[in-house]
Amino acid sequence: MKKISDSTISRMSQYYRTLGRLIEKKVQTVSSDEIAEIDGVTSAQVRKDLSFFGTFGKRGLGYNTLDLQNNIGNILGLYKKWNVALVGVGNIGRALVDYEEFRNQGFLIKLLLDNDPKKISQKVHDLEIKPFSDIAKYAKQHKIQIAIVSVPANVAQKVVDGLVGCGIKAILNFAPLNLKVPKYVIIKNENMSIELEALSYHLTRRGK
Amino acid sequence: MKKISDSTISRMSQYYRTLGRLIEKKVQTVSSDEIAEIDGVTSAQVRKDLSFFGTFGKRGLGYNTLDLQNNIGNILGLYKKWNVALVGVGNIGRALVDYEEFRNQGFLIKLLLDNDPKKISQKVHDLEIKPFSDIAKYAKQHKIQIAIVSVPANVAQKVVDGLVGCGIKAILNFAPLNLKVPKYVIIKNENMSIELEALSYHLTRRGK
Repeated sequence: MKKISDSTISRMSQYYRTLGRLIEKKVQTVSSDEIAEIDGVTSAQVRKDLSFFGTFGKRGLGYNTLDLQNNIGNILGLYKKWNVALVGVGNIGRALVDYEEFRNQGFLIKLLLDNDPKKISQKVHDLEIKPFSDIAKYAKQHKIQIAIVSVPANVAQKVVDGLVGCGIKAILNFAPLNLKVPKYVIIKNENMSIELEALSYHLTRRGK
Repeated sequence: MKKISDSTISRMSQYYRTLGRLIEKKVQTVSSDEIAEIDGVTSAQVRKDLSFFGTFGKRGLGYNTLDLQNNIGNILGLYKKWNVALVGVGNIGRALVDYEEFRNQGFLIKLLLDNDPKKISQKVHDLEIKPFSDIAKYAKQHKIQIAIVSVPANVAQKVVDGLVGCGIKAILNFAPLNLKVPKYVIIKNENMSIELEALSYHLTRRGK
């Protein structure tokens, strides 16, 4: 199997959402042109992205929306449930606990960890915040597969080292820096100012 | 000037950060190979992205880190200050008010708006939450250029219509749906589960 780029995967997530909206509107078939138009890419790109994973749809007939969404969901592993730990229960952390999209897509936050003695034992909804120092015990107990890191930048590397140390192999990092992990660990950075910078670029370009 | 893709702009943001870290480490020159290695892209991609905006660096000598960072910062409009309004002061909204990266990059949240009578007149740091119904007045008063929308999905389109109505031309949307705006308005969607889906994809692929 060819190495598939991160941008293909992120477009697959987009197509998945687009198909969901079409299904809500009772649309039964869709062409790559129509998907492309909605998602702001070329139809060649849509066909190329999908071709990495198999043959979907019929030439001249387009794709069945339900089938294609189901296939993409399987490719992305969205029908599985993932046990997620969240480290760092500040404002961003609390916002993420409430973020419905996570639950809807099968990312279940099962464990909240923090270092701050004032926060430990507090509850967010029905989850009690546990001390990060006990991560090994709790990660095992809750069969944690993915960790979300929403701690300040200056402690983020230490936190990530701790997560890797207890066998967590997938990390979503909200701290604004690149962290070092072994090759077998996947880390993704969520930098919320990247999109704002794109807006700033377009406004600058227009001279406004 | 050629049409420049969103992914080029988002990589330019990445290069900007990478150069910042190199400068912190007192690195004075860098090759496209080295930038590519750090950012996980090909060096041809780095050169192609930069070539849209001019000629930087010297053949065989690489790029001066300070010069290149400065050039990219100008291209992205990062040395300007932008007046930002935030609509919807829930958990995500509050997290965004605290998000230091925004301030560091010149995105200054000057106005908080909400619809909830209980929230109006409350303060977040030194900013008082104003009623969204008075957006026209406040947007003008604070010379708002960019709006961040962190309201529930079912009211997001109405909020965006209101923003467009008072002349705001750049919007960052955190609600999990695609919103309709006129062609002259730029809207970017921040969907925090896209990165989690990439993790899920990789974990699934490994059969874990």
